[in-house]
Amino acid sequence: MREITLKQIAETLGISITTVSKALKNYPDVSPKTKKAVLDLATSLGYTPNSFAVNLRTKESRTIGLIIPEVVHHFFSSVIDGIIAEAEKNGYLVIILQSNESLPMEKKQVELLLNKRVDGIIMSLSNDSNDDDHIKDIIRKEVPFVMFDKISKLIPCSKVIIDDQKAAFNAVQHLIQKGCSKIAHIRGPVNPQNAIDRFLGYKKALEKHNIPFDSKLVYTCKNVTFEEGKAFAKQIIEEHPDVDGIFVITDLVAVGVLAYFNDANIEVPKQVKVIGFSNWFMSQVITPKLSTVDQPSFDMGVASFKLLLEEINAKKDLLSFKPRTVELDTSVIERESTL
Amino acid sequence: MREITLKQIAETLGISITTVSKALKNYPDVSPKTKKAVLDLATSLGYTPNSFAVNLRTKESRTIGLIIPEVVHHFFSSVIDGIIAEAEKNGYLVIILQSNESLPMEKKQVELLLNKRVDGIIMSLSNDSNDDDHIKDIIRKEVPFVMFDKISKLIPCSKVIIDDQKAAFNAVQHLIQKGCSKIAHIRGPVNPQNAIDRFLGYKKALEKHNIPFDSKLVYTCKNVTFEEGKAFAKQIIEEHPDVDGIFVITDLVAVGVLAYFNDANIEVPKQVKVIGFSNWFMSQVITPKLSTVDQPSFDMGVASFKLLLEEINAKKDLLSFKPRTVELDTSVIERESTL
Repeated sequence: MREITLKQIAETLGISITTVSKALKNYPDVSPKTKKAVLDLATSLGYTPNSFAVNLRTKESRTIGLIIPEVVHHFFSSVIDGIIAEAEKNGYLVIILQSNESLPMEKKQVELLLNKRVDGIIMSLSNDSNDDDHIKDIIRKEVPFVMFDKISKLIPCSKVIIDDQKAAFNAVQHLIQKGCSKIAHIRGPVNPQNAIDRFLGYKKALEKHNIPFDSKLVYTCKNVTFEEGKAFAKQIIEEHPDVDGIFVITDLVAVGVLAYFNDANIEVPKQVKVIGFSNWFMSQVITPKLSTVDQPSFDMGVASFKLLLEEINAKKDLLSFKPRTVELDTSVIERESTL
Repeated sequence: MREITLKQIAETLGISITTVSKALKNYPDVSPKTKKAVLDLATSLGYTPNSFAVNLRTKESRTIGLIIPEVVHHFFSSVIDGIIAEAEKNGYLVIILQSNESLPMEKKQVELLLNKRVDGIIMSLSNDSNDDDHIKDIIRKEVPFVMFDKISKLIPCSKVIIDDQKAAFNAVQHLIQKGCSKIAHIRGPVNPQNAIDRFLGYKKALEKHNIPFDSKLVYTCKNVTFEEGKAFAKQIIEEHPDVDGIFVITDLVAVGVLAYFNDANIEVPKQVKVIGFSNWFMSQVITPKLSTVDQPSFDMGVASFKLLLEEINAKKDLLSFKPRTVELDTSVIERESTL
């Protein structure tokens, strides 16, 4: 990049560098005429202030870091959408890193962002995260920090969540109200808090409606994929042909379940009812349309950035900041798969 | 953030700041013992080099900017995936901005990234882009720059593209080979080069197979949405009940077409065959499964970053760089909607 410096502007106009600098910052002790001359020349030369130098002075990068498990994922891409929209509104840029559900990658990325001196970090943990030294490092360095969706309950930071247990309870209760009495659960991996909470919600709903819990009806995803949904659907029907309802950890996996049932001519919702979680776009376009739990992903992004900005601003003003948890509402969306 | 400076390390160890700095950079003229003491203390204090200061010295930010029309979009999120993966491999961070298909937003974002002094910019134009002063600004400032997918032919920069015309030709020829003789086209908006090229490919295929072109069979999307697909499907069947094939600009819109046909009991592929473009994930899970053109989105991201890095490195070494265009292959994927 051809660097146009204050020096060149000063030399061209025959004034001091200090005056040029003051003029660009609109100091009152520079005459309007000089200001105009400097601004006009700066504009015509395409001068842009050196943001590194500005950063060094203000210690602000106006950039935040975002670490998420994956981008090609309807839920996460909607959250990103919300974060970028809100950041943009407030003049912040967003560096996005994806951990690909790997803990070593996640650790490296936290280190990168800390080295980069971002003004704050927003994060959703990878499924592998069962150790949180790298997260504690963020807290120790007093970098503003917000977790959303996949959080660690042990970390004292702001969080944006839904009540996964309650949402799962409502989904399973919906199946029961539709007449299901033998309900399988395809759950998420062992570590993530939200997989644990959804499983607990499933158990609670059975309990409330006097349906005995049977651990053999619980199937655990490793990678939370479409293919796993297909494979588990087959296994469930083979092992428990009388299952009449399935609560699935997320829509992507539930769509796999429906794909297998379609291929195998198992009628949904007649023989088995299926409900997913997250309300992915594709859930409303497949056959049968999938009932699910709506999770406000865009709003989750907006709320995460807002919380982060509160903390960034408090820090700037040397005020103390008490981490807060924002809980967003969910709702069961009834479609064809549970009619 | 509590700032741990070289000064503190120097004072604690009773050595000079220069020695600390040299030790951290592994200079040969510092004894291994001193190096170890500095590194140990730096690590235990959680010292991270101030990246702003490093940036100022090297004029490298190791950060690139990416501007895309939208994140919640299967094609773009896969490209992002490829870009982030390749950037990560090479030690670069990616700032992602979305233009929301708005030209004023796109201009503002280019300015932001230039002010931020990113090492390079990758971009796919918004549908609104019909003026390219802001793009010329990137070139004028000699910032390494790559365009992908939605490009402007007039800008002298590296590009990663597919041959949209050929890909569309193949898609329409596929419909013809399957027996279609009255083929409608739901095209993209007026400005984007890829919408124009796909339209030209459609025309060419008709021409080659001696099917007269009829402009009344061409329907133009404004927002390229699922809802537009539904609305156009209805309009096409009402206005031209004998249409037996539809080539749709992208899968999202084609899925809307199928949704309307399913609701209206119009049989696909029996009465009308439908082919989309881009091979979104959902195309293989809907009923009927959608035939489409596979576009290597992840590879497009990887190729874009590689080209950008070539230019960044050439610039660093003060070598001249000649922009190149990389063209990736596409293929027709036959599924149920054109059987």
